[in-house]
Amino acid sequence: MITATAEIRVRYAETDGMGIAYHANYLAWFEVARCALLESIGLSYRQLDADNYLLPVLEAGVRFHAPARFDDRLHVTASITTPPRVRIRVDYEVRLNGRLITAGHTVHAFMNRDGVAIKPPAHVQECFARAFAPAHPAR
Amino acid sequence: MITATAEIRVRYAETDGMGIAYHANYLAWFEVARCALLESIGLSYRQLDADNYLLPVLEAGVRFHAPARFDDRLHVTASITTPPRVRIRVDYEVRLNGRLITAGHTVHAFMNRDGVAIKPPAHVQECFARAFAPAHPAR
Amino acid sequence: MITATAEIRVRYAETDGMGIAYHANYLAWFEVARCALLESIGLSYRQLDADNYLLPVLEAGVRFHAPARFDDRLHVTASITTPPRVRIRVDYEVRLNGRLITAGHTVHAFMNRDGVAIKPPAHVQECFARAFAPAHPAR
Amino acid sequence: MITATAEIRVRYAETDGMGIAYHANYLAWFEVARCALLESIGLSYRQLDADNYLLPVLEAGVRFHAPARFDDRLHVTASITTPPRVRIRVDYEVRLNGRLITAGHTVHAFMNRDGVAIKPPAHVQECFARAFAPAHPAR
Repeated sequence: MITATAEIRVRYAETDGMGIAYHANYLAWFEVARCALLESIGLSYRQLDADNYLLPVLEAGVRFHAPARFDDRLHVTASITTPPRVRIRVDYEVRLNGRLITAGHTVHAFMNRDGVAIKPPAHVQECFARAFAPAHPAR
Repeated sequence: MITATAEIRVRYAETDGMGIAYHANYLAWFEVARCALLESIGLSYRQLDADNYLLPVLEAGVRFHAPARFDDRLHVTASITTPPRVRIRVDYEVRLNGRLITAGHTVHAFMNRDGVAIKPPAHVQECFARAFAPAHPAR
Repeated sequence: MITATAEIRVRYAETDGMGIAYHANYLAWFEVARCALLESIGLSYRQLDADNYLLPVLEAGVRFHAPARFDDRLHVTASITTPPRVRIRVDYEVRLNGRLITAGHTVHAFMNRDGVAIKPPAHVQECFARAFAPAHPAR
Repeated sequence: MITATAEIRVRYAETDGMGIAYHANYLAWFEVARCALLESIGLSYRQLDADNYLLPVLEAGVRFHAPARFDDRLHVTASITTPPRVRIRVDYEVRLNGRLITAGHTVHAFMNRDGVAIKPPAHVQECFARAFAPAHPAR
């Protein structure tokens, strides 16, 4: 499993009339953690984008256990459990003071700018292979 | 089943660097259709909010089949299949020129401003009961 | 002067912890009215975008006189007073039940995707010329 | 003058179809820097909000000199030049690698939840007085 955590501080812009963080924002926060995760294994979302390899969201799911409020410091953890093949599944946990307040997942596929599913470029496959390689390979 | 459809025209603000509607916006569009649905059975979200009956999202799920682009006119249909008890489940379909591009659901519960689950007020229960009553009751 | 009005219904997603429409949303609403204005003189933002003629915002100003709340139906009027040359200035008025609640303006220039200022294409210049032509030309 | 700087990393959610940061986001980023500024003089936006002292935006202005792109690390500086009386004016500069890309200002007034202008609470006035007091008073 590979994992990375991003810190998010809830902005006033992200609150709604209930005085809590608006639920759609969690998807944007997931993305911040997802970018940090890819970066942690040597992949730059920015470079992928520049190279016209897009990673659109095919599926998203979120469970909201407790609200977040303005100025809360959230820890958003993204993790990938199994080496991706055609699709990439990322799981998320959002914690406030160590307490799980929201959990979710997204599923992605590599596409080109015409929306056609494509094989990820070789260096992407290598980054994932390296990240999931056993740290202490059996002899 | 009760159902309502809202028309959404994709704003430039809602597009992202991939040139498509950013995925988190669908949750906000679902909400527009959800409000239209409640309104269609005589319930005002605004009045509920004013009365401190909140309907936070407990769960959300979305499947993205095809992208939407700037200026697209989307039809977002919200429907409730079974009369809600403690929780309300709403299903959504987003269509572009009749083609299903996104489907999803949300689950809600009535809460007060302190985040405590509460029974919906009597007039809310009546609205739902009336909406789900058989149109031609058997004698 | 050319002018167009768009109706905006304030979404819950657009409210903030003060229970009012978050101020940054007005810029997105201005854009909806701006698109309607261009469309009214035969110009499609979508087509311009497809043709790689971008109209980024160089300057924006907003004065907030009174708040808007969830579900309010706002009328956002965009107008261009003088035929644009290199820059296009658009003025906006947002009304709630006829009362002016917000006023603003934006300034734009045509640019290509590399951010270089360019002359607008001929058909754009013609659309503006026609729109600003005197309705009853003197003989 | 009092001043504070916040670092903002442009999120994918904040980009638009032009591939640049959508202009309305700058107002939300200004707010992040504004909160940091108030915090730096001992004022908590969160506490003000909890105490029902709101600071709505009355006026906003932005000049966009150059775009920001996904993943850019921006430094947003907020500053207050003159001790606020009834109104508070805050100026902003957004820099990318030291280069000024956007400048702006906002004007605010203290209001209660009914939208009525009110005198700021005593501890707010003291925080500002202390912040603007000459560091080395003349003897």
